[in-house]
Amino acid sequence: MNSTARTAAIGIDVGGTDIKGGLVTSDSRVITKTTIATEVNKGVDHVIGRMIELIRKLDAEAKNGGYDVPAVGVGMPGTLSRRHGTIIAPPNLPGWRNIPLVERLEKAIPHRVFLDNDANLAAYGEYASGAGRGVRDMVMLTLGTGIGSGIILGGQLFRGEGENAGEFGHMIVQIDGRLCGCGQRGCMESYTSARHLIARVTEELQAGQSSSLKKTLEQNGKIEASDIARAAQAGDLLAKTVWEDACRYLAVGCMNIHAGIDPERIVFAGGMSNAGDFLLHQIHRFVAAMASDMLGEFPDLRIAELGNDAGFIGAAMHTFAG
Amino acid sequence: MNSTARTAAIGIDVGGTDIKGGLVTSDSRVITKTTIATEVNKGVDHVIGRMIELIRKLDAEAKNGGYDVPAVGVGMPGTLSRRHGTIIAPPNLPGWRNIPLVERLEKAIPHRVFLDNDANLAAYGEYASGAGRGVRDMVMLTLGTGIGSGIILGGQLFRGEGENAGEFGHMIVQIDGRLCGCGQRGCMESYTSARHLIARVTEELQAGQSSSLKKTLEQNGKIEASDIARAAQAGDLLAKTVWEDACRYLAVGCMNIHAGIDPERIVFAGGMSNAGDFLLHQIHRFVAAMASDMLGEFPDLRIAELGNDAGFIGAAMHTFAG
Repeated sequence: MNSTARTAAIGIDVGGTDIKGGLVTSDSRVITKTTIATEVNKGVDHVIGRMIELIRKLDAEAKNGGYDVPAVGVGMPGTLSRRHGTIIAPPNLPGWRNIPLVERLEKAIPHRVFLDNDANLAAYGEYASGAGRGVRDMVMLTLGTGIGSGIILGGQLFRGEGENAGEFGHMIVQIDGRLCGCGQRGCMESYTSARHLIARVTEELQAGQSSSLKKTLEQNGKIEASDIARAAQAGDLLAKTVWEDACRYLAVGCMNIHAGIDPERIVFAGGMSNAGDFLLHQIHRFVAAMASDMLGEFPDLRIAELGNDAGFIGAAMHTFAG
Repeated sequence: MNSTARTAAIGIDVGGTDIKGGLVTSDSRVITKTTIATEVNKGVDHVIGRMIELIRKLDAEAKNGGYDVPAVGVGMPGTLSRRHGTIIAPPNLPGWRNIPLVERLEKAIPHRVFLDNDANLAAYGEYASGAGRGVRDMVMLTLGTGIGSGIILGGQLFRGEGENAGEFGHMIVQIDGRLCGCGQRGCMESYTSARHLIARVTEELQAGQSSSLKKTLEQNGKIEASDIARAAQAGDLLAKTVWEDACRYLAVGCMNIHAGIDPERIVFAGGMSNAGDFLLHQIHRFVAAMASDMLGEFPDLRIAELGNDAGFIGAAMHTFAG
């Protein structure tokens, strides 16, 4: 075992429901990982206490295993200030307003703490030890309720001057198109998010369209993006139409990312990405039909590999990035 | 005078009509500049001979002025290989196929030669000593027959993994929209290029629409983008409609660049940019009407400052970038 392998950083990823954490070596092996409930309703101090508890537990495990811990990486939902180490106003953590999180954690634990945006760290995790291994430039699109994204350029997280880069979900792909949650019209997100897919299926069912998803809705009281993917794969006509339309807009999104920053790879994470090759195949098909070959080789499209662990792995790995 | 100011690089910018060249200090003063005809019809050897002649002339002027010349930067239209120093197949230089230009120049002159794409070097010129001074991240859009672009990130030219980054003109802003020269539908270029503006005006005139541009066409035998800008400013209804529509699509292009890479500044060069504040004002107006304020502060929009000198200035300045 070489000296590098005796170093392992702690990464934690704080969400509205869970805090995930782990001990990760600089060569990206996960030594141990653990998840606890965030208990966000018990207030800011309580949650910070739970974070400290989790970090101390991982720290003890590092000591037992003979690992040096150089730093702790913490991923939190935005908005936050990396430079000041403060949480500004994250929509999913009510009550968190201008909290000097790094200062408070560093008082309680004997390590430097690096705070960053959870979506960026998840992208970094996939870059460092998941579907982005082996490339230097990568974009990750997280296909969830909304569309998140993270950019790696030259092996580093790219955030832009105002730290707002990577909002590819809000690229306009249809001027004067559908109203997006952000207030713009025609954003890629407004055609490809789980929210949009579910809304379209629900509308069509209410309009009397027949579909196997009607039964899903009756049985479960709701429809999820994964239900739509499954029904589309099974050949359900409504599901197929809605799914393929979303893939067509995702193809345009990838084409625009290619034209703009020409990354070597685009990685898909989040709900829709669980469809795996079924997703990639559809996107490839629309790219083949729509994209100009004058714009050079198309980025490699991949499904993310780390699932919900990407955030804490990226948080830990990014502390090694200097 | 400090020692830095005694160093001046030679930059040359080769176009289908002219070769522009100059001697530029590392603090971006243009000591001397000159333009000669490319005489592209006389063949590759002849043009390379003229380039060598121009470089020697500038080299002699450097010696007379007491300047050390560290290197020569050469901007050429694509396609080319920076790494191999070869010209591959530039559309505007017929007969140039796989020419080892750097090798041939370095045999004839006593300096290292750096070859790069002319659009990238023009963007670098504006960054280093024009409308991009003072920022680290900048995108330049060159509004010409087509839409060119160049990206500066962290003070360096950004080209992407496949060296095809910065094709913002080929971002799709209207899925299934107008057919673009690249073969895609709905590219920003297909709504904003001079080619598009002129085609739209010509179509409308042929359809019997009244406009002051009819007289322009009769007098000059053609209409140029600058005629449309002038007529729009003078209140001509057809010109105003076409111009404003192009500005609306440019606004969407800027919004997408903002969402994607969030540069501090977007600089406009080329024909349409001669309209100056008339262009910026219109784009700002459409951005204000369409853009979400949830995506952070909008980039600063500016008109390029160096005109046709941007290419050779960028070629020279980029040799100092290491």
